Amino acid sequence: MASHDVLLILTATDRDEQWEQNLLERLPGNLEVKWENLRTSDGSMKNVKDLDRSIFEDVTILFTYAPVPVEWIPKVRFVQLSSAGSDLWAQHPKFLDSGVKFATTSGSTAPQIAEWVIAAWLKFQHYFAAYEQFQRECSWRPEFTRQIEDSVGLRVGILGYGAIGRQVGRLCRALGMELYAFTANERPSAESRRHRGFNIPDLGDANGELPSKWFHGKTKEALNDFLSQGYDLLIISLPLTKLSEKLISVEQFNLLSKRKTFVVNVARGPIVDQDALIQALETGLIRGAALDVTDPEPLPAEHPLWKAKNCMITPHVSWLSTHQLGRIKGILADNLERLYKGEKLMNELTYETRTHHE
Amino acid sequence: MASHDVLLILTATDRDEQWEQNLLERLPGNLEVKWENLRTSDGSMKNVKDLDRSIFEDVTILFTYAPVPVEWIPKVRFVQLSSAGSDLWAQHPKFLDSGVKFATTSGSTAPQIAEWVIAAWLKFQHYFAAYEQFQRECSWRPEFTRQIEDSVGLRVGILGYGAIGRQVGRLCRALGMELYAFTANERPSAESRRHRGFNIPDLGDANGELPSKWFHGKTKEALNDFLSQGYDLLIISLPLTKLSEKLISVEQFNLLSKRKTFVVNVARGPIVDQDALIQALETGLIRGAALDVTDPEPLPAEHPLWKAKNCMITPHVSWLSTHQLGRIKGILADNLERLYKGEKLMNELTYETRTHHE
Repeated sequence: MASHDVLLILTATDRDEQWEQNLLERLPGNLEVKWENLRTSDGSMKNVKDLDRSIFEDVTILFTYAPVPVEWIPKVRFVQLSSAGSDLWAQHPKFLDSGVKFATTSGSTAPQIAEWVIAAWLKFQHYFAAYEQFQRECSWRPEFTRQIEDSVGLRVGILGYGAIGRQVGRLCRALGMELYAFTANERPSAESRRHRGFNIPDLGDANGELPSKWFHGKTKEALNDFLSQGYDLLIISLPLTKLSEKLISVEQFNLLSKRKTFVVNVARGPIVDQDALIQALETGLIRGAALDVTDPEPLPAEHPLWKAKNCMITPHVSWLSTHQLGRIKGILADNLERLYKGEKLMNELTYETRTHHE
Repeated sequence: MASHDVLLILTATDRDEQWEQNLLERLPGNLEVKWENLRTSDGSMKNVKDLDRSIFEDVTILFTYAPVPVEWIPKVRFVQLSSAGSDLWAQHPKFLDSGVKFATTSGSTAPQIAEWVIAAWLKFQHYFAAYEQFQRECSWRPEFTRQIEDSVGLRVGILGYGAIGRQVGRLCRALGMELYAFTANERPSAESRRHRGFNIPDLGDANGELPSKWFHGKTKEALNDFLSQGYDLLIISLPLTKLSEKLISVEQFNLLSKRKTFVVNVARGPIVDQDALIQALETGLIRGAALDVTDPEPLPAEHPLWKAKNCMITPHVSWLSTHQLGRIKGILADNLERLYKGEKLMNELTYETRTHHE
């Protein structure tokens, strides 16, 4: 480390002195760390554009969610995003500058999102909503005794086998389920099945060993072939792109009717055709659905999805956890070490990726 | 197989011809199978004592839940109970007869009970009850965003590490939790840690490899030492005996206050002192509880437990699953094969166990 670096950390918390001290002991040399707490005293979040420009002076490394005006950060050489995605930065001159490194925290939310998925699935299968109603009535009613079904031997399909899909897969396998995975690109070799990017040790499926069958493709035919296999549970965990918009629509719900699949969307609302979903729920083509994402967000009070049969909705909260900040600060620290060692960063967005449009 | 055996199957379903044919192909010789459906046309269950006595004539092998009058079954040599416990049989002359074999279906309900446990835990940690209320109000309210905690690195204590505890353990480890186990007897060797009894392949913890620490004992001191370790989650999954009655009371809830443990009881109601539990919930000593068992059952409508803070109650249904009957018929078939081969039965209750009183 020849140069003097200035790291500015924009988060919703105060300076973490212990973390900073550990970081400085780990790194060779000459890093200055500055913190800016974005949370105001009333609990709301400051807009980056309302910050005092002077705090960005001499900053060479930035930890942030929101983009910063390019003229405020002329010296920046590495941006560690605190989010899994980078869509807010797509047109930013620094993002399109081959001399600046970017990395995400993709994978850091996999545990909590996978927990949300499994909680929604098991709650449905075990009739918790009905028992909760009986409890509110102080009524001991052992009903549904011939309908509750455990997961042993049931089949889950995971559409998009990234960090989230892999941790869902781990939990499903621990429940005794059979797992089929779908990816855009073919994964013919053990090497191609490995997970690239951040993964918590012993969680997820680092080597891609859990699926008993792999499917792939970028066409409706490939998708429909995957969906035709018969699933008790389908997880939608792929990114929103032009290709994935309204990916799950009337035709796909018809295919899912074979086993009346329980459909879970923890990706992005527009991937599912919501009119088709409501129709599939109301006509019983599928047994139920759980959505942490909708289209639009917030979902308006008058939207029929709120009242659709057997449909659970939460307001885009599955990624939240008190452990999240520690996890992404861990990624930042690891990436600073890699930066100084001249190694490839964890979750690095290469210049090619950043400038390649689908 | 020299003798002619007559097997009578008392269950809540009709004859399963496919299963019977598979069984007879597997076994050498000379077994006659008779079926009696205990479910009446109105859905209720017949009492064994109201059955026609003649169906028991010549029966040598019995598959049943409820005891049958001893004078009806003079020739019986093997009773396969369809339940995990044998308490209903404790004083039965055939149970106290060294010439008759008995086996349970212990372990067959582990998957569904473990699912119930994990669903209750995750639903609580992810604030599902609040979001369900918001959904009923058609209201998009992303609240609790600084309180939701995923399970990675949290600690679970499992009190009673049998079939159920081991499958709960498997799921907790897949969530990234640390696991401490408590058993009555010491398990110092790998051999002693193995699970004895029925286990679904690849589920549970057949070799006892998942706990990072083991505790044991039959005294309050030993229990309190275990409970003092600090748990986010405590699972009660041990049998009800004189020793375990009111095992978890005021003193124990005080020990659990260290991490405000979430307490789950899927064993028997009387193991927990319910007055102490209500007090611990109302004063916030523990963060919450989930109970599939209460004392008494059914829990009367006026009982304060129904309305205790952060307490989920279901009416003793966690053991139910549409897969259950197939699983216990599988144990019956395996045990018939073992019987004819002269092998030790799966889940056998030896004469010594049956006549030994704690």
